[in-house]
Amino acid sequence: MSLQRVRIVLCQTSHPGNIGAAARAMKTMGLGDLRLVRPKTFPDAAAQAMASGADDVLAAAQVVTRLEDALIGAELVAGCTARPRDLSHRMIDAREASGLLAAHARRAPVALLFGTEMSGLSNEELDQCQLLVRIPANPDYSSLNLAAAVQILAYELRVASVSARAPDEVPFPLARHDDLERFYRELESTLIGIGFLDPLMPKRLMTRLRRLFSRTRIEHEEFNILMGILKRIRNPRPGGGGIQDNDIVE
Amino acid sequence: MSLQRVRIVLCQTSHPGNIGAAARAMKTMGLGDLRLVRPKTFPDAAAQAMASGADDVLAAAQVVTRLEDALIGAELVAGCTARPRDLSHRMIDAREASGLLAAHARRAPVALLFGTEMSGLSNEELDQCQLLVRIPANPDYSSLNLAAAVQILAYELRVASVSARAPDEVPFPLARHDDLERFYRELESTLIGIGFLDPLMPKRLMTRLRRLFSRTRIEHEEFNILMGILKRIRNPRPGGGGIQDNDIVE
Repeated sequence: MSLQRVRIVLCQTSHPGNIGAAARAMKTMGLGDLRLVRPKTFPDAAAQAMASGADDVLAAAQVVTRLEDALIGAELVAGCTARPRDLSHRMIDAREASGLLAAHARRAPVALLFGTEMSGLSNEELDQCQLLVRIPANPDYSSLNLAAAVQILAYELRVASVSARAPDEVPFPLARHDDLERFYRELESTLIGIGFLDPLMPKRLMTRLRRLFSRTRIEHEEFNILMGILKRIRNPRPGGGGIQDNDIVE
Repeated sequence: MSLQRVRIVLCQTSHPGNIGAAARAMKTMGLGDLRLVRPKTFPDAAAQAMASGADDVLAAAQVVTRLEDALIGAELVAGCTARPRDLSHRMIDAREASGLLAAHARRAPVALLFGTEMSGLSNEELDQCQLLVRIPANPDYSSLNLAAAVQILAYELRVASVSARAPDEVPFPLARHDDLERFYRELESTLIGIGFLDPLMPKRLMTRLRRLFSRTRIEHEEFNILMGILKRIRNPRPGGGGIQDNDIVE
């Protein structure tokens, strides 16, 4: 799977708790390759605590002193940044960048860099990136927590890499077309019976009700319940014993 | 901006730090309407600390004891869930759900619910949702932190609301949450009245009917029709004149 070729590189992270939370964010999306460039405090109990069940990602994390060492073999290197930079890096948003990274990761390692909590990536670190990634955020308050930024990009990478989507599962049998038609006939005659629908002036009532029920895709069992209700509307038994076996139409 | 009409509802949150982190996640994406249903500890210093610069969101958060009170006026209610549920709620992924919520939020309030850290939303809370939202995650480790889940959905909501949509894609007005609750109450008492539902042995009938109708997302006009039908079931007028003005509940 291409996600295994995506490296998350945290540069000079100040708070070890953020490293743990980033590891957890990565693992929830199927990423496992974490690299730490000169972390202030690592390993650390706070990182362990925040990693929750992602301690394997933390344990496998590579710690390096030079950014270059974390990027060996990477085909595409992207840097996450909150603010526009003065130099003319190509700046694209998280979704487009994730598509690019995931596509490249089909064949070769790629890397996504995150800077310090306070000031982001340094200019020297940016120099090693081929593109800059921006998470679209509230212009008045764009202060994403480091792990939150990792979470969003890991999520986008997962969505991008799972190109073939699972077909919609239909867990319960639906009512068949002929059952539905029977239901609509019963519904119509019941509504006429109780005087809600005037057959001489039906307007568009049945069309509207059909549209309402067809949106919901009625299941077979629900069809039985609805038919039972219609039957009981025609033959009310006030104070009766609730649902009876013969209320359910087979 | 439609994001102002999106309510984030945290149900029975255990850790106040998660409430603060969720407030920060919301504000980074331009969301500000936070509602807390029976939080275990709130207000709390840990919430303040994690909110960072989003203390205004925290200060404005509404605390309620009943979920219904957080949903008054909401036109579309979605619940975030990590695992498939037994009954047939419609389950869609975060991106599609955000598109739907953002579209409805152009006109009316919408709500997105998150359950407890340990077990998610209860069945009673799910009953008040019209659709379930799943964040695509690693099947072997889908344990997203609560604030991380809020962050991803807030991000998707921002992206969805910023992407320009044609005005004719704005759907018909839906019945509001409190109208729907009124409909379910009337439906229940009507079914008891005609002897279909035994209040002493209700089984899961109302839950099933709630899920059937919530899948269909009842429009406001359809709500009026359904209320008219219930009224006429209780007061049948066989051979009567069809739909009367006073059959329609305003």
